[in-house]
Amino acid sequence: MRTAAVVGTGLIGTSVALALTSRGVTVYLRDHDSTAVQTAAAMGAGLDAVPPEPVELAVLAVPPGRIGETLKVVQAENLALSYTDVASVKEQPLHEIEALGCDVSRYIGGHPLAGRERSGPLAGRADLFEGRPWVLTPSRNTDTETLNRALEMVSLCRAVPVVMAPRDHDHAVALVSHAPHLVSALMAARLEYARDTDTRLAGQGVRDVTRIAGSDPQLWIDILGANANAVADVLAGLAADLDTVVGSLRSLAADDEAKRDVGARGIEGVLRRGNAGHARIPGKHGQPAARYEAVPVVVGDKPGELARLFADVGRAEVNIEDIRIDHAQGRPAGLVELQVDPTRAEALTVALRTGGWTVQR
Amino acid sequence: MRTAAVVGTGLIGTSVALALTSRGVTVYLRDHDSTAVQTAAAMGAGLDAVPPEPVELAVLAVPPGRIGETLKVVQAENLALSYTDVASVKEQPLHEIEALGCDVSRYIGGHPLAGRERSGPLAGRADLFEGRPWVLTPSRNTDTETLNRALEMVSLCRAVPVVMAPRDHDHAVALVSHAPHLVSALMAARLEYARDTDTRLAGQGVRDVTRIAGSDPQLWIDILGANANAVADVLAGLAADLDTVVGSLRSLAADDEAKRDVGARGIEGVLRRGNAGHARIPGKHGQPAARYEAVPVVVGDKPGELARLFADVGRAEVNIEDIRIDHAQGRPAGLVELQVDPTRAEALTVALRTGGWTVQR
Repeated sequence: MRTAAVVGTGLIGTSVALALTSRGVTVYLRDHDSTAVQTAAAMGAGLDAVPPEPVELAVLAVPPGRIGETLKVVQAENLALSYTDVASVKEQPLHEIEALGCDVSRYIGGHPLAGRERSGPLAGRADLFEGRPWVLTPSRNTDTETLNRALEMVSLCRAVPVVMAPRDHDHAVALVSHAPHLVSALMAARLEYARDTDTRLAGQGVRDVTRIAGSDPQLWIDILGANANAVADVLAGLAADLDTVVGSLRSLAADDEAKRDVGARGIEGVLRRGNAGHARIPGKHGQPAARYEAVPVVVGDKPGELARLFADVGRAEVNIEDIRIDHAQGRPAGLVELQVDPTRAEALTVALRTGGWTVQR
Repeated sequence: MRTAAVVGTGLIGTSVALALTSRGVTVYLRDHDSTAVQTAAAMGAGLDAVPPEPVELAVLAVPPGRIGETLKVVQAENLALSYTDVASVKEQPLHEIEALGCDVSRYIGGHPLAGRERSGPLAGRADLFEGRPWVLTPSRNTDTETLNRALEMVSLCRAVPVVMAPRDHDHAVALVSHAPHLVSALMAARLEYARDTDTRLAGQGVRDVTRIAGSDPQLWIDILGANANAVADVLAGLAADLDTVVGSLRSLAADDEAKRDVGARGIEGVLRRGNAGHARIPGKHGQPAARYEAVPVVVGDKPGELARLFADVGRAEVNIEDIRIDHAQGRPAGLVELQVDPTRAEALTVALRTGGWTVQR
């Protein structure tokens, strides 16, 4: 790929432009906001100019609701040989594109699973997509050249391409992103009027379940609005299971032993399916979820303690897969859980104890 | 406190005995399993002997369903001046104690919020309760001396006492522990038959929401069984909100703009209540949940990198409040998010960049 255009120089568009420019592609920038395009150009993302001939690929980094009209305009100008977008939903924009009579053969939907809390061109980064999944959603009519141009762009951004049908994509993000967000909010909403003594008993479990419930509502209304039916389908299934759980709990509270057994089996079914679903989430580097072993280490709550700990971990030559810091309420010291490969847990424990650490294992 | 008895030398009983013994209390051990009591005694938890006169406090560390009968037996023997237990539910055992005609004035319910994945006396630790909340649930008839003896034991275990009514305790753990567990399982159960391409798109959000869904079902059936109605009440409230959410999502998918507005307002309400509930969970040391600022640092996926990072963090003298390691799928390097006090984020960023780290901030 030698030439590309980026239409919309916000966070994602500027990041795509920075990545392509850094790999030697000549990138033409465009935005209805001239300040945004000048900022992106000043950052080295590309040229604030109209390409002299059609570029190989134009990336439409505009809001989901504006993809159809934007594609209509740029195809009329013959801006590029192929076109893609970066919206987090894929079916609705495709319907609009078809309804507007755009050339669908030269369009392929795209969705890079990357983002930042900040927005705008200044937040753009050439490495934003590195190692991230980038979904491409060809329609029945998308030609192979367009698919290949999009694949080359994904590769230049060092992302990992995943090809899916538009409907499958929307169902997937409903399942692994949008529904979990609402579930977290629903659980957190139960705590709104909790007494202080109730929330003082909160441990790591409820903290994890409700962590993403702290996010900006307006942002999520926009995301959910573009994928509402797919999310509703996931949550309707969950609601049916929830009714079973509430019924099973009432049976479990009964005096009658046979009824309690029925309740226990109902709860067990959901918990076992939860185990099975939990095991489906892939671990690091797309491998199946590994069962790491926790090596919990007591550390003082002051600067320098973690440095000392990780220096000792480094000397033990054990790779840390994940870390969890547990600051129990009122606890003078914290507990740092080092998640490691189970075959390395004993070696790490011995090394740390030798170094004078208290390992609760 | 000079003398105590521990009845039931599993994980919790042995840990209480170890803590009290380490603070100079003479502890008498007892268990229907003579191997368990001998093991605990050999670990230095106390004496495998019958006390010559009533001890000050007997701690019944037996399963919830056996507290009533055990208290009846030990009170008939005049084992202690006061009695407490350690069960994770409090109302049902109290009803049984009252029904069995025990002396309720000398009994106070207790629940230390601490545990380990392992069980049995060998897993016992003197520091298991350090800094943890320990709920005490006096009944109307509990005398002040019994409350004070229990408070002294909690203090000797270096736990933080929280006094609550039995019913309030059961409601609190339903809210902050038992219901979140089922919510996590319900979300994870949705993923049971997800396609591989769906779960490849999983990010940190769904991982956090479903983390505790990997737990042992049988253990949780026992826990939920003893508090089933309180948990059902919390989840019935959540189910009503969930119905609203599903209805709002369907409206959000409508063609009619007025209907979409109604849907958006319904979703917004739940998301805002989620924000409010999320903010109720106390942070470190019982302070209100702090808003830390994330300083994301790119690190190589090999031993020694974290040591080098935390050595540099240590030199910057910035305290790390929490850590999150983000291993994006296929990503050669990981992103370590250091959560710090917002007033220290800039200093840390500068220090790390000076040290050659890539900070994505």
